[in-house]
Amino acid sequence: MKLGKVYIIGAGPGDPGLITVKALEIIRKADVILYDRLIPNEVLEYAPKKCLLIYVGKEKGKHQYTQEEINHMLLRYSKSYNVVVRLKGGDPFIYGRGEEEMLFLNMHGVETEIIPGVSSVYAAPAYAGIPLTNRELSSSIAIITAQEAYHKKHRRVDIRKIAGNVDTLVILMGASKFREIINELLGVLDKDTPLAVIIRGTYDNQKVYIANLGNAMTIANKVKPPAIIVIGEIVKFRSYLIGER
Amino acid sequence: MKLGKVYIIGAGPGDPGLITVKALEIIRKADVILYDRLIPNEVLEYAPKKCLLIYVGKEKGKHQYTQEEINHMLLRYSKSYNVVVRLKGGDPFIYGRGEEEMLFLNMHGVETEIIPGVSSVYAAPAYAGIPLTNRELSSSIAIITAQEAYHKKHRRVDIRKIAGNVDTLVILMGASKFREIINELLGVLDKDTPLAVIIRGTYDNQKVYIANLGNAMTIANKVKPPAIIVIGEIVKFRSYLIGER
Repeated sequence: MKLGKVYIIGAGPGDPGLITVKALEIIRKADVILYDRLIPNEVLEYAPKKCLLIYVGKEKGKHQYTQEEINHMLLRYSKSYNVVVRLKGGDPFIYGRGEEEMLFLNMHGVETEIIPGVSSVYAAPAYAGIPLTNRELSSSIAIITAQEAYHKKHRRVDIRKIAGNVDTLVILMGASKFREIINELLGVLDKDTPLAVIIRGTYDNQKVYIANLGNAMTIANKVKPPAIIVIGEIVKFRSYLIGER
Repeated sequence: MKLGKVYIIGAGPGDPGLITVKALEIIRKADVILYDRLIPNEVLEYAPKKCLLIYVGKEKGKHQYTQEEINHMLLRYSKSYNVVVRLKGGDPFIYGRGEEEMLFLNMHGVETEIIPGVSSVYAAPAYAGIPLTNRELSSSIAIITAQEAYHKKHRRVDIRKIAGNVDTLVILMGASKFREIINELLGVLDKDTPLAVIIRGTYDNQKVYIANLGNAMTIANKVKPPAIIVIGEIVKFRSYLIGER
C-alpha cells in the first residue's frame, strides 16, 4: 500500500504574512491539515475547499489530544490521503515536538518532510523593536522554555547558570512562571537588567511590556500566554529604534 | 521631501522556498534591492524588471562595502525611490546587522520595517535531520558566532561556560576557527559529545559531517563556510530520523 506523505510545517509566529512560500504551496494542495492553537485563519484559508481541517490544539473545556493520539492520527490519515499537513505555530523543531511526530511516522514507514517556519523566538522581539543580537549589546543568545525548566522530571534547566553566561536570554512559555523566573534571575543578574515581555508577538494585537528585573513584579499581572520574555541589555535597543513610547 | 521606505528583509537560509510571503510581496514591488552574498537567484528574480539590483556582499578581489557605506547607500536610495529593500540571508536580526541599518535610517528620519526570515540557526540543522530541541535530549539552546567569540575587542563570549550550561550549542561562522573551537570545548565537554557540521545548509548542495569532539579533527579540513556547527546529544536524533547514511 502506498502511504501519503506527511509535511511537518511551521506556520510562523502569528502574522500570516510570515508563512513561507514553500509551506503555502503544500497547504494549497493539502488533503488534510491537523493544526494547532494560534494558527491564523488567513493561513488555513489557503487550503483547498475539500481539505479536511482538524483542530488538535489545546482549548479549555474541550478534549485535548495527547501527543500519542496526534501521532496515530497522522499515521491513520497518511493511509487514506496523499498530502497530510501537520501545521504548527512558529517552527516545528523549536519546542514544537515536530521531531517526535516525524520520528514516529518514519518508524512506521511514512515519508515525511520538515518545512521550517519563522520562529517567534526572534520574530516577536523583532516586531517589538528588539533584535536578539547587536555587536555592542548582545553576542550570545540562550533559549529555554519555562515549562522544561520547571517541570522536567529527570533534568532541570539551570536558568541561573544559563542567564549568567549569555548576553541575552529568551524564555518561552514563561507567563505562568513569571514571578518564579524573576526571583530566580535576581539571584544572579543585576536588578537593573532590562526585560521585555511580548504577548501575542507579531499578531495585530501584540502587547509589549518593558521593565527591569528589579521592578518586574509591577507588570507581573499583565503577563499572560502566549508570552516571550527577553532579558538583557539588548532590550534597550527598542528605545533607540522606536523611541520611548 | 517625502522619503521612501526601507524594508530590512530576511531572505531565509538558502532554499528559495523558505522566503516568506510578506517578503515576496515587497520584493515584487521593489524599486531597488541591496542584497548580500548567498541570496538565491530565484529570490532576486521576483523583483520587477525595472528594479535596481545592487550587490553589496563580500567577494574576493572586488570592492567590499563597509557597513557605513551600506547605511549611506540605503539613505541615499530612500531619497529617490519609494520601495527600498535591504535583503539579507537568514534573519536580519540574528547576527545580521539589520538593527544597525534600521537605527541609522531611523535617526535620519527614514521609515523602516523589519521582515523576519527563517534563520539558518535551526533551518540548516532541520534539513540535516537535527532538531534543536527534544524533550529527552535538548531543553536549552545557546547560539553564538565564532567571529564574536574570537574577535571582539571589549568583551569575549566565553564559549566554555556557555557550552557547559546548555544542552545544545549552535555556532555560526565557525569554519575558520573550527580547530580552536574543538580544542576549547574539549576542556569542558566529554569527548563523546556529538557534533554536526552543516555546510551550505538548506541549499541543494548541502553537506553534513557528523563527528564527536574527540574525533572532530578528522573532518576539520572539510569544514568551510558557510557552516553551522551543532554540538550536543541532540545530534544523535539525525540517525533516528534518517538512518545511518
